[in-house]
Amino acid sequence: MNRQKLLKASIREVTFGINVTLVEPCNLYECEIGDDVFIGPFVEIQKGVIVGNRTRIQSHCFICEKVAIGEDCFVGHGVTFINDAFRDSKVSVNPIDWESTTIGNSVIIGSNATLLPVTIAAGVVVGAGAVVTKDLLAPGVYVGNPARLLQKK
Amino acid sequence: MNRQKLLKASIREVTFGINVTLVEPCNLYECEIGDDVFIGPFVEIQKGVIVGNRTRIQSHCFICEKVAIGEDCFVGHGVTFINDAFRDSKVSVNPIDWESTTIGNSVIIGSNATLLPVTIAAGVVVGAGAVVTKDLLAPGVYVGNPARLLQKK
Amino acid sequence: MNRQKLLKASIREVTFGINVTLVEPCNLYECEIGDDVFIGPFVEIQKGVIVGNRTRIQSHCFICEKVAIGEDCFVGHGVTFINDAFRDSKVSVNPIDWESTTIGNSVIIGSNATLLPVTIAAGVVVGAGAVVTKDLLAPGVYVGNPARLLQKK
Repeated sequence: MNRQKLLKASIREVTFGINVTLVEPCNLYECEIGDDVFIGPFVEIQKGVIVGNRTRIQSHCFICEKVAIGEDCFVGHGVTFINDAFRDSKVSVNPIDWESTTIGNSVIIGSNATLLPVTIAAGVVVGAGAVVTKDLLAPGVYVGNPARLLQKK
Repeated sequence: MNRQKLLKASIREVTFGINVTLVEPCNLYECEIGDDVFIGPFVEIQKGVIVGNRTRIQSHCFICEKVAIGEDCFVGHGVTFINDAFRDSKVSVNPIDWESTTIGNSVIIGSNATLLPVTIAAGVVVGAGAVVTKDLLAPGVYVGNPARLLQKK
Repeated sequence: MNRQKLLKASIREVTFGINVTLVEPCNLYECEIGDDVFIGPFVEIQKGVIVGNRTRIQSHCFICEKVAIGEDCFVGHGVTFINDAFRDSKVSVNPIDWESTTIGNSVIIGSNATLLPVTIAAGVVVGAGAVVTKDLLAPGVYVGNPARLLQKK
């Protein structure tokens, strides 16, 4: 019988601010978590991710390399970030091809939203289940698949 | 190095009916689970939730406070409930602001559906991947983002 | 107090090829995993599933009975397969009623996509957050809910 390489979800080489709460099992590695952050169960946060002070990451989220999330954000349950936009219909295994996502301060992202590599301005609200395919730079509420402006602020 | 508050997904202060099956890891607390209920792995069920007899909660679901699910329901994989509708584009940390969801008996909810705080009548079918933003009171099959009636019963 | 049947996510009766990597916790049983496959954390793969050589299954996926995935595929985070299409608005507990899904080689499935029982041809790209309700037989990129052809190859 073939032997498998069996890894375990864990917390390793993470830089934490003060007063952080986490619920295991979660898989966090080589990322930077600010002060007063909450991270729910069944969450994965990859290398190089930055999570700002007082931001809350709810259960079942996946946050990939090249994502930076601001302060005072709410990231709902099951929110999934993406850094490989499958340019030319290909998956890239080379990080140099991956694209970054920047989330401003006080952004609210509804549960089960999916975010391609984008920039989201401070204060934007992304509705639950939205699929964000473009930058969201104007304040407002964005919903749907693909996400469109529902309401200006 | 800062110390974190490290919690563990667990089953605590849950009222169970007879013949319940659960798959760990799961995070269930202060909720009420009826007879013959099945709960798959990687599920979180929060305080005050009621799950009726013979209902099946599949893997990866998140069921928040203020949700009551009827009897004989099927809740597909990755189904996510919401109690904070971000009124005025704000997240509320005060449970008094959260809204409730009531799911009737024999409701079928497809995998990866997302449910804002709503009432769903007995026998309704919610399609996979639907985002339910309004009450679904008439019998039928509802699909899409936002969910719309596809077929009357 | 009633006693519950408490199962644990685990890896049991799985046939593995060479050089497979898995991240626990995951729940895999009675399935067949090819050579050089990667399987991320918080994944469930059920009985009878086949995963081809060099295919990568990312975190939070759910792969149900009657699914066969080809070689060199990429299955994004939170991708959920379905084998019960709720015909006549009913859930079937009898596997004989469940329908199969066949994914060709080199298929790319974006994160949080949901797949009803379908056939997907080799080389197809399914966008993040798509809900696939029909066979995708022509090469191209498919996105949306329900998934539609965005771009021919």
